[in-house]
Amino acid sequence: MPFRPERRNPLDNAHEICYTCRMAIIVIVGAGMMGSALTFPARKNGHTVRLVGTPLDGEIIRYARASGEHLTLKRTLPPGVEYFTFDEFGGALRGVDLLICGVSSFGVDWFAESILAGVPEGIPILSVTKGLLHVPGGRLLDYPAFWNGKFPRHCINAIGGPCTSYELADGAQSSVFFCGRDIDVLRKLKDCMETDNYHVGLTTDVFGLECAVALKNAYALGVTLTVGMTETAAGKPQYNPQAALFGQSAREMGKLLSLAGGNPDMLFAGIGDLYVTVFGGRTRLLGTLLGRGVKYTDALKELSGITLESTVIAVRTAAAVKELAAEGKAREADFPLLMHVNALLTEGKTVDIPWKAFLK
Amino acid sequence: MPFRPERRNPLDNAHEICYTCRMAIIVIVGAGMMGSALTFPARKNGHTVRLVGTPLDGEIIRYARASGEHLTLKRTLPPGVEYFTFDEFGGALRGVDLLICGVSSFGVDWFAESILAGVPEGIPILSVTKGLLHVPGGRLLDYPAFWNGKFPRHCINAIGGPCTSYELADGAQSSVFFCGRDIDVLRKLKDCMETDNYHVGLTTDVFGLECAVALKNAYALGVTLTVGMTETAAGKPQYNPQAALFGQSAREMGKLLSLAGGNPDMLFAGIGDLYVTVFGGRTRLLGTLLGRGVKYTDALKELSGITLESTVIAVRTAAAVKELAAEGKAREADFPLLMHVNALLTEGKTVDIPWKAFLK
Repeated sequence: MPFRPERRNPLDNAHEICYTCRMAIIVIVGAGMMGSALTFPARKNGHTVRLVGTPLDGEIIRYARASGEHLTLKRTLPPGVEYFTFDEFGGALRGVDLLICGVSSFGVDWFAESILAGVPEGIPILSVTKGLLHVPGGRLLDYPAFWNGKFPRHCINAIGGPCTSYELADGAQSSVFFCGRDIDVLRKLKDCMETDNYHVGLTTDVFGLECAVALKNAYALGVTLTVGMTETAAGKPQYNPQAALFGQSAREMGKLLSLAGGNPDMLFAGIGDLYVTVFGGRTRLLGTLLGRGVKYTDALKELSGITLESTVIAVRTAAAVKELAAEGKAREADFPLLMHVNALLTEGKTVDIPWKAFLK
Repeated sequence: MPFRPERRNPLDNAHEICYTCRMAIIVIVGAGMMGSALTFPARKNGHTVRLVGTPLDGEIIRYARASGEHLTLKRTLPPGVEYFTFDEFGGALRGVDLLICGVSSFGVDWFAESILAGVPEGIPILSVTKGLLHVPGGRLLDYPAFWNGKFPRHCINAIGGPCTSYELADGAQSSVFFCGRDIDVLRKLKDCMETDNYHVGLTTDVFGLECAVALKNAYALGVTLTVGMTETAAGKPQYNPQAALFGQSAREMGKLLSLAGGNPDMLFAGIGDLYVTVFGGRTRLLGTLLGRGVKYTDALKELSGITLESTVIAVRTAAAVKELAAEGKAREADFPLLMHVNALLTEGKTVDIPWKAFLK
């Protein structure tokens, strides 16, 4: 039985997770692909795992409860996972030791209002949501900081690093970082979640990690432009252009980290994450379409009108840079790839990689 | 006709290349794949291009002279390239404005003794040879510094960045950096060589660029271990493990750059170069074999006993780190991937990625 002491403050509680035994009750809110994939390491470690759908996940939960399979991840979820629709959330919370946030970046306000507002401060949160908010004045804000702005006493931690949900479900060797303000809490979270294939590093540099892994979304869009461009030109993949944009992405991401006030030490986590994002998913599809010379408005139709997180990050980050540039605190010329991606997304431009601008 | 002023000192001369017209006489020494691929941008700009084989390149030169094709690059070289065997080198040098070094890293001593010793100091050199030398005491030395140690008055510059010879020959968009001590010389070299698909940035950080792009060879071996590992395990590529090792490579390369006394600013050039190296060539083949659990001595047989530059860099860099560690100036634990690659190459070990060591 999990050890759950009387709760006094968030850190007291978090320190006790898994302290006397490795079993805990883990509630995952958001039954999208990544939230659901985290059931694999959590169940591998023998924890009680309760997967709670958001109001948008009703069908996923009902299907998984009936069949054991996940509709969009297209994998059988681990035996023993308990499924809850959102109206059953209250029941799912009973005895919870750790709450994992698996909502998309479009759900961060919802998560604040519908989850954090009702969850005791003593329950540590571990968020796998990637993204950044743009605050007027050219500031970028990570989600843990955003949530702690509303709920200062909640113990909010986050996951960053290269890990696709499909491969985590398939048991691939995967390395991520957990970040948070308290290293002792992080150690407990690692004890809970780390397995022989899900490797967890720890950092208290929350902004650095979150900024690095969010930016990779915008830059994956940039790198994959060349996939579409070279398909057209050569009929087979060309890696020189991809590599040029990958290197330029690393350069701009490093500058953005510094500019945003972060420590560039976590850049490598964003670089690993950029690598994995270039090889799959809808961001690559959109980048490839734009790279073929399709306009964003037309490409959106092929994506069924769904706005991707990567485009949101790119536009927000470009807006922040432009604001800082207007105040003389940054130079747009330092971010030619970001500015080109932004022009594709917001100005109706078609692809025209500014090669010469990269090498200034 | 090229403008060639009377020569007084190296920089006077270098400043004049292409000054009054864009035509120059470019001699490329080394008819391997990369040296030969540089005939494409050079001829595109209308220069006189003389490709001179080393004593090992006789067959390549004779074949190209007869057929216009390159034996190992497997491409038709640009019209107008003039071919010289090594015993015709003296003739090739007549009126030379720029000498490009295209020998492999196993030819750096040969290049010093057989070429630099005989070429007037006034002729700028541009080397595309990638590598590092290990000097006792844990020092790493770039080739321009090594050559300038022997010939201090020669104007030696170098090329670094992600550019495979095949794709350069095919006209792919490719971004590289030229490095050297004198920015004005570099500007002239860029004027000579830059085209609409061969993009050239400039830096006077010779060690930073050369170190970053050499290290990527060692780390490409590390990243591609996972290619062989996941082929076996899953029957299809898995990108989480590749991305984990790519991120770890970026982290270790950044630390090595700092440790070696370089500026980490050029890290991004090594990262782009790492990306392109992961996708092709014999380093990927070797990494894949080792990743399948093959011992290095057995993998060597599949490579026809040929020692790869990547293995030399890995072993030299690891030796330098070990020396520094013995003096208390570095920690081997900061370079777990490099140390593992070194153990595979020098200690007869089989692959066993130290996942947990990465996240310390």
